[in-house]
Amino acid sequence: MLGVCYYPEHWPEEWWADDARRMKDLGLTYVRVGEFAWSRYEPEPGVYDFGWYDRALDTLGKAGLKIVACTPTATPPKWLIDRYPDILPVDPITGQVRGFGSRRHYDFSSETYLRESIRITTALAERYGKHDAIVGWQTDNEIACHDTALSASPNARRAFQDWCRAKYVDIATLNKAWGNIFWSMEYRSFEEIEVPFLAVTETSPAHRMAFRRFTSDRVALYHKAQVDILRAHSPGRFITHNFIPPTDTGIDNYTMCRDLDFASFDNYPLGRTDVWMAKRPASEFRPYMRTGHPDYCTFLFDQTRSLAGGKFWIMEQQPGPVNWAGHNPRPLPGMIRLWTLEAFAHGAEVVSYFRWRQAPFAQEQMHAGLLRPDRTPSEAWPEVEQALRELKTLDLAPVPGAKARIAILYDHEAQWLGETERQADSYSHPDIMVNWYMAARRLGLDVDFIPADGDPNGYDIVLVPGLAMPDAATVKRLGDSGALLLFAARSGAKARDVNLPEGLPPGELRQLLPIRVTSVGTARPDCPEGMVWRNHTYQAFTWFEALELVGEVDVQASLADGSPALVRKNNALYMATLPEQDFIADLLETLCAERGVPTVRLPDDLRLRRRGDLTFAFNYAAVAREAPAPANAHFVLGSRTVAPRDLAVWRVPS
Amino acid sequence: MLGVCYYPEHWPEEWWADDARRMKDLGLTYVRVGEFAWSRYEPEPGVYDFGWYDRALDTLGKAGLKIVACTPTATPPKWLIDRYPDILPVDPITGQVRGFGSRRHYDFSSETYLRESIRITTALAERYGKHDAIVGWQTDNEIACHDTALSASPNARRAFQDWCRAKYVDIATLNKAWGNIFWSMEYRSFEEIEVPFLAVTETSPAHRMAFRRFTSDRVALYHKAQVDILRAHSPGRFITHNFIPPTDTGIDNYTMCRDLDFASFDNYPLGRTDVWMAKRPASEFRPYMRTGHPDYCTFLFDQTRSLAGGKFWIMEQQPGPVNWAGHNPRPLPGMIRLWTLEAFAHGAEVVSYFRWRQAPFAQEQMHAGLLRPDRTPSEAWPEVEQALRELKTLDLAPVPGAKARIAILYDHEAQWLGETERQADSYSHPDIMVNWYMAARRLGLDVDFIPADGDPNGYDIVLVPGLAMPDAATVKRLGDSGALLLFAARSGAKARDVNLPEGLPPGELRQLLPIRVTSVGTARPDCPEGMVWRNHTYQAFTWFEALELVGEVDVQASLADGSPALVRKNNALYMATLPEQDFIADLLETLCAERGVPTVRLPDDLRLRRRGDLTFAFNYAAVAREAPAPANAHFVLGSRTVAPRDLAVWRVPS
Amino acid sequence: MLGVCYYPEHWPEEWWADDARRMKDLGLTYVRVGEFAWSRYEPEPGVYDFGWYDRALDTLGKAGLKIVACTPTATPPKWLIDRYPDILPVDPITGQVRGFGSRRHYDFSSETYLRESIRITTALAERYGKHDAIVGWQTDNEIACHDTALSASPNARRAFQDWCRAKYVDIATLNKAWGNIFWSMEYRSFEEIEVPFLAVTETSPAHRMAFRRFTSDRVALYHKAQVDILRAHSPGRFITHNFIPPTDTGIDNYTMCRDLDFASFDNYPLGRTDVWMAKRPASEFRPYMRTGHPDYCTFLFDQTRSLAGGKFWIMEQQPGPVNWAGHNPRPLPGMIRLWTLEAFAHGAEVVSYFRWRQAPFAQEQMHAGLLRPDRTPSEAWPEVEQALRELKTLDLAPVPGAKARIAILYDHEAQWLGETERQADSYSHPDIMVNWYMAARRLGLDVDFIPADGDPNGYDIVLVPGLAMPDAATVKRLGDSGALLLFAARSGAKARDVNLPEGLPPGELRQLLPIRVTSVGTARPDCPEGMVWRNHTYQAFTWFEALELVGEVDVQASLADGSPALVRKNNALYMATLPEQDFIADLLETLCAERGVPTVRLPDDLRLRRRGDLTFAFNYAAVAREAPAPANAHFVLGSRTVAPRDLAVWRVPS
Repeated sequence: MLGVCYYPEHWPEEWWADDARRMKDLGLTYVRVGEFAWSRYEPEPGVYDFGWYDRALDTLGKAGLKIVACTPTATPPKWLIDRYPDILPVDPITGQVRGFGSRRHYDFSSETYLRESIRITTALAERYGKHDAIVGWQTDNEIACHDTALSASPNARRAFQDWCRAKYVDIATLNKAWGNIFWSMEYRSFEEIEVPFLAVTETSPAHRMAFRRFTSDRVALYHKAQVDILRAHSPGRFITHNFIPPTDTGIDNYTMCRDLDFASFDNYPLGRTDVWMAKRPASEFRPYMRTGHPDYCTFLFDQTRSLAGGKFWIMEQQPGPVNWAGHNPRPLPGMIRLWTLEAFAHGAEVVSYFRWRQAPFAQEQMHAGLLRPDRTPSEAWPEVEQALRELKTLDLAPVPGAKARIAILYDHEAQWLGETERQADSYSHPDIMVNWYMAARRLGLDVDFIPADGDPNGYDIVLVPGLAMPDAATVKRLGDSGALLLFAARSGAKARDVNLPEGLPPGELRQLLPIRVTSVGTARPDCPEGMVWRNHTYQAFTWFEALELVGEVDVQASLADGSPALVRKNNALYMATLPEQDFIADLLETLCAERGVPTVRLPDDLRLRRRGDLTFAFNYAAVAREAPAPANAHFVLGSRTVAPRDLAVWRVPS
Repeated sequence: MLGVCYYPEHWPEEWWADDARRMKDLGLTYVRVGEFAWSRYEPEPGVYDFGWYDRALDTLGKAGLKIVACTPTATPPKWLIDRYPDILPVDPITGQVRGFGSRRHYDFSSETYLRESIRITTALAERYGKHDAIVGWQTDNEIACHDTALSASPNARRAFQDWCRAKYVDIATLNKAWGNIFWSMEYRSFEEIEVPFLAVTETSPAHRMAFRRFTSDRVALYHKAQVDILRAHSPGRFITHNFIPPTDTGIDNYTMCRDLDFASFDNYPLGRTDVWMAKRPASEFRPYMRTGHPDYCTFLFDQTRSLAGGKFWIMEQQPGPVNWAGHNPRPLPGMIRLWTLEAFAHGAEVVSYFRWRQAPFAQEQMHAGLLRPDRTPSEAWPEVEQALRELKTLDLAPVPGAKARIAILYDHEAQWLGETERQADSYSHPDIMVNWYMAARRLGLDVDFIPADGDPNGYDIVLVPGLAMPDAATVKRLGDSGALLLFAARSGAKARDVNLPEGLPPGELRQLLPIRVTSVGTARPDCPEGMVWRNHTYQAFTWFEALELVGEVDVQASLADGSPALVRKNNALYMATLPEQDFIADLLETLCAERGVPTVRLPDDLRLRRRGDLTFAFNYAAVAREAPAPANAHFVLGSRTVAPRDLAVWRVPS
Repeated sequence: MLGVCYYPEHWPEEWWADDARRMKDLGLTYVRVGEFAWSRYEPEPGVYDFGWYDRALDTLGKAGLKIVACTPTATPPKWLIDRYPDILPVDPITGQVRGFGSRRHYDFSSETYLRESIRITTALAERYGKHDAIVGWQTDNEIACHDTALSASPNARRAFQDWCRAKYVDIATLNKAWGNIFWSMEYRSFEEIEVPFLAVTETSPAHRMAFRRFTSDRVALYHKAQVDILRAHSPGRFITHNFIPPTDTGIDNYTMCRDLDFASFDNYPLGRTDVWMAKRPASEFRPYMRTGHPDYCTFLFDQTRSLAGGKFWIMEQQPGPVNWAGHNPRPLPGMIRLWTLEAFAHGAEVVSYFRWRQAPFAQEQMHAGLLRPDRTPSEAWPEVEQALRELKTLDLAPVPGAKARIAILYDHEAQWLGETERQADSYSHPDIMVNWYMAARRLGLDVDFIPADGDPNGYDIVLVPGLAMPDAATVKRLGDSGALLLFAARSGAKARDVNLPEGLPPGELRQLLPIRVTSVGTARPDCPEGMVWRNHTYQAFTWFEALELVGEVDVQASLADGSPALVRKNNALYMATLPEQDFIADLLETLCAERGVPTVRLPDDLRLRRRGDLTFAFNYAAVAREAPAPANAHFVLGSRTVAPRDLAVWRVPS
């Protein structure tokens, strides 16, 4: 089903009924409202004005639309900031207060703001919690966007001290855990603890990792307060949040999702591709400039699907050019429809476009909507109509229990470690993860994600592009799953407080593989090393570990100097380096063959995805591509030859 | 006539008379003095010491030199800053106070500094306003240089609030005009308004544009206070200011010039070329490293000429290597003379060298003068002598009413819009303007500039590289002028408060062209699109608009996907994109032909310019070039074959 | 002899004896301890706890190790900072306080910290000054590392004012010396003087140079306080300091060394090479990625050797991968041994590895040691064993009076001038110095360094890559030495207060060469000029001076425009530009021939160095190289064919 994001407060009240009717006529089911309207809910301190919102919701509800209401905490009003300036966060790099004038100008550690967020959420939840047309809630908006998770404020410092006290109980324990003796960094009490910023040179990785964990916990604590209120006052309604990628926020989305009914994702293929490929040469970037990269957003879909039990929405879907990337191209004709169906193919339940109508004012006035500011349909409109017709044809049922045969283990702390302990400027755990995901997708595989503490059972293969500080139970669970496990270099690199593990890395992973990492060398990205596997030489990059074999393991690939590059024992494989994508694809192909997982080599811009008994093929290329469908495939949409920027869907008679 | 900038306070008093005599003997007419000497005029608070200045002025005057005196407000002394620290500006990017120790350490919004500036200006004007040798005044120095226009100080905030109150009267009007509801950015009173800096993410473009307008107004207000005092106390003397390019200051020089008798420009061809071409490859830069780029400074001459009725001076002329660019080459032999005559060819009345003698101390000790620190002549000296001889030969009369047949419309707000609303990181209105100027100059055309509210009448062609937020009257005036009008993409993009105009862009331009911009896509500079005009394919960059034709228009060029790239109705042409310079030149050639404006294709480093009945040809090349003079041309200087870095001047018998 | 850096406070006390025994068994002589342990010496304000340190020192001493004890002032404890926040320095670029959490969080101008440093140093010196096992002291640690020399704190401002008062006595003298009239920058009293940071645009070079000199003096003053205490309380023990390169600290190491017995250097070939070659293409960098560059660290050895009478130690020697460079490769097998012997070849008395055992916690946990965190030997261990065996074979005697025939004059103020007065963004005095050093090393020459006020007598050739502000005595001393003198462009550029010298540059150098620099042009590094010497054309870069010949000089090379590029009179040669390394090598070869200094052209990765009667050859190449030993050479280590990353040592029978 499809939906749309709507801002009644941006438009004349006399337009609302017409808007609602046109949404319904178009075939939309859901409408999201209200996430930035605090200054209208409460125009003066303590003075609520809900009349306009009552009328807006009633208008939408009467038109037969299902409403997703929001808490407005992403945009506290000016009077609140002026009254309580301690709400504002402090930039950890510059030490400057980050002021009013845009959005997200609040510190997750401000007790004042937590209290005020509870107050406005309660006011909305009490008034609208049982509104007939409201079927669910979105908390806040794109939480921790604009690098707002980390703050160097006095509030953050105090809350961090409390967090440390709760976790380490006595200061000697903390000093020892963090290795504070190293540079006389010992604290005598929790009150002495600083935020790990603005020091003369780098602060301790244990200190920084603790702050990252604190920050993520604090965001979750802040968020949960809203969830609890909504649960209490709005029975029977779902609660979700519209996430952006955790690479941008640095928080643990899995923890946040524990309290949610499902996760939502805001999907902007062109903006994301522009930012992600900003440093790539035009020859690589240009083919996807107006289509988005075929793997990057689906990588984020599959991640999001894993956050809360396999169910997810696209809460905001790009409907035309956006405004916030370095450059903002217009999508090629057909891409709005393609992206919409692609989200469904990857398991989305709802795709909701952002936004109903392009605003002619303020920061996002160059961001397209389904309508233009003058109320005429934009180019997206007929594509949405087509997508709606096609979705009706496909008649997709929810697939809550569906599982791929391949999973990628997603360890948010591996990202944090990479950002906390340099050692190689070019090391990026998120890039490794994308790289491996792309390798799997080139083989036509569906891919699930599981969190580090998730359930690996039932997968044939679990790819582990990084598992920074695993505990024994996690490693045992992985080992017991029976899946083939492929670990990237730097897995098991640290014990919990970012110390080297007992007996050297990979620490707890020695349960599975009798190896020791005796030394780590890193290399500039333009200085790769050769790596030989099955008589073929691949390139390996950035991270090179010296492995000592302390038991029976099979050395399957070696670096140029003869040292082990890939070792295997039973179901577990460990790589001492970070090879190019071709190697990952070739190795994964053999692992799939070993487990009887069917693969098919796809060209770069053709991608497959199954949902239920349907197989979808998406052609991002500028030329037609043949879909690798079996001879007896029954095409539900399209045909074997898939036109450029088109798709096909088939079913194989059983 | 020629002049020079002189700093008696830098030298022993016993040198003054000799200096004055040598200036006169060389043939100089004007001498500018006194713009950085506040600490000598007023060595202690309220204690003036004018004796030395009396003697300096008398010495210069008695030698027969005409003096341009200055207000010294670019360098408030230390005691003033210590007494009133609120004079200092605050950096809008870092939030840091910008301190004493160089120059321009004042905030245009400081009422204290305005008062003190009035005080010192009054003291000087009262004492010297009727001095026999003083023929004119320069206000301040290179106002708003070093990014000093914008400040995030409390003073700036208060003054901005007042400006907003004056402009919008009630806060609801401002909230609506700026679209503040968008992210709950509504203010309840003018006192709540913030400066648009140091927020969590981008502030509203309306907010930022208002601040830009406020800033420019504030600079003009500050400046006018000095002009008013000088007018009152110094009758019969001209008042001017030495401008730097508005790209550097971000202010509206036209407004400032309303109060001036003429504009002056500080001309540093090598420094400017180094900065402007800093990212160009050596192959492009190197030919002009020691000559300056043949179009860049003349572009600035022609702009400056437009500021105040066609009259302008070069107040500071580079006489050798400077000190402030990334690298500072020595001019090639002959260039000082060439630049001098070039300024006159473009209409200058006076060229005044900076400076008489190289200072052996402080920030600019590596900046050449006409003399070396040891009082010996520098390399510039004989070139100045030659220029003086040649100017005598040419006997140039003022050309106040002279007009080119081509004009470029200069809209300072188009620059501000490009800096305020990103949408494309590579969009630069000033670069587009230079690009179009160069296209015209490649055709041998003289070019005028007119401001957005200027008079387009009498021009055959008006090029509009951007006209961001035109009102109806401006568009009507352009249309009524009868000139062929070529509008660049993004013209008419916004209504006055940086909102999308009614009926979509190009808003008021629909008076002339029945089109609507329904969507805007932008592209990385390394991802151009093809554009076809008259069966030839050109490259188009950065900005791509989808045009809807809502009436009769002629589509003259198309993008690769067939969409309109250039449309025309009657005299108005509009481009949906930003094509390469070759296209502008080719198109302009046809427009010139249509209007009977003669053109000639010039090589890149040969340039023409007419003044009165003289035609000048300047050869920047390392090889000789043939001047495209008619067979019957009478050469006043040089000959048909123009040597490298040389020039020729001819008259065609009528 | 070899040593090691050890941190008893990082390890369980029960390990200490075993550690000491293993050090001794390995063959180490020295152990450095205690430089970061303040929080253990004084866990609470004024409460000392020396028991653990007593036991540690006794354990080490009893094992027969010689102890180098340290003052712990690089890491003041948290309670001290909280009690006296004015200890913290202020970043001169951002204006932010640089806080606690890493190391070196102190301001050299804080009187509080000076007092506290004296207190803790006295406490340690009194208690341990006569400890049997302590043979010497190291002050602080890598003083001024992490850009801590410069501070914009109120303390720094006050101390700078005092320094100015002491130097200039009255404020009028300072104003004149600095040329403060230039932009009305005149001060009325020393209390008005600001630090030269955070101004609107660049502050005066005289102001900045004064601050650099003040800073260096202040560091020396701070440091001397410790030296004086140690001298008083610890008779018969040496005092040294472990320097890092002065390019990183910006201080004058020669002045600091006046109070020391010898200088020490911390030698990290891979980290240094990564940082130094960060912008070089992989093709240049990669060959040295895992060996270090063959000239860069030896350049620093030879510099360090010059600091205090020819005697120096390597106090910290890289023993495997480090953690602090952009990328941190593992040394190739053999390099630890090669680097060790190379240091001795260049005159080191002791090489002390950093560190005994890799710490499993805190900032440097990825930094290798001789032992791994689990107490097993790292890869360095057998190489240290080999080096020890070989050193025994070589039986090196101290060579206090040994002198090379070539010296490079090292003028720290030439570095400061290049950083203070831009004029050419690409000008780098340290790079010029390295470049010339490499040219000499390509000729197989041993090279000494002498400071600007050092003794040039006894050298055949003195290379002067820069001598910014020489006084008459320095020039006379150079001239009188009889050495051939080769001066780089910009030598003699300034008088003492960064003013242009009387009669123009090269000022005092005119004692030797009758030339005047009448104009200076600079050029982008990608825009070199041709320079002809002996019919061969070389490239010259960045800096181009116009020389006026005011007496008899021999023009030996010219630029493309015919102007002098190299002039000579008697023993003095002056270059008007900065030629490529090939030219320096070719010219130097002829100068050596003139003086009968033997040279041999070496391939880039083979280097020679003599110590006593031994000649060492080090082969950094991936292939074997022939050592250029005479036929009758007696090989003490290795043989004529030197394997990759191997070395040979020979003696020539006399």
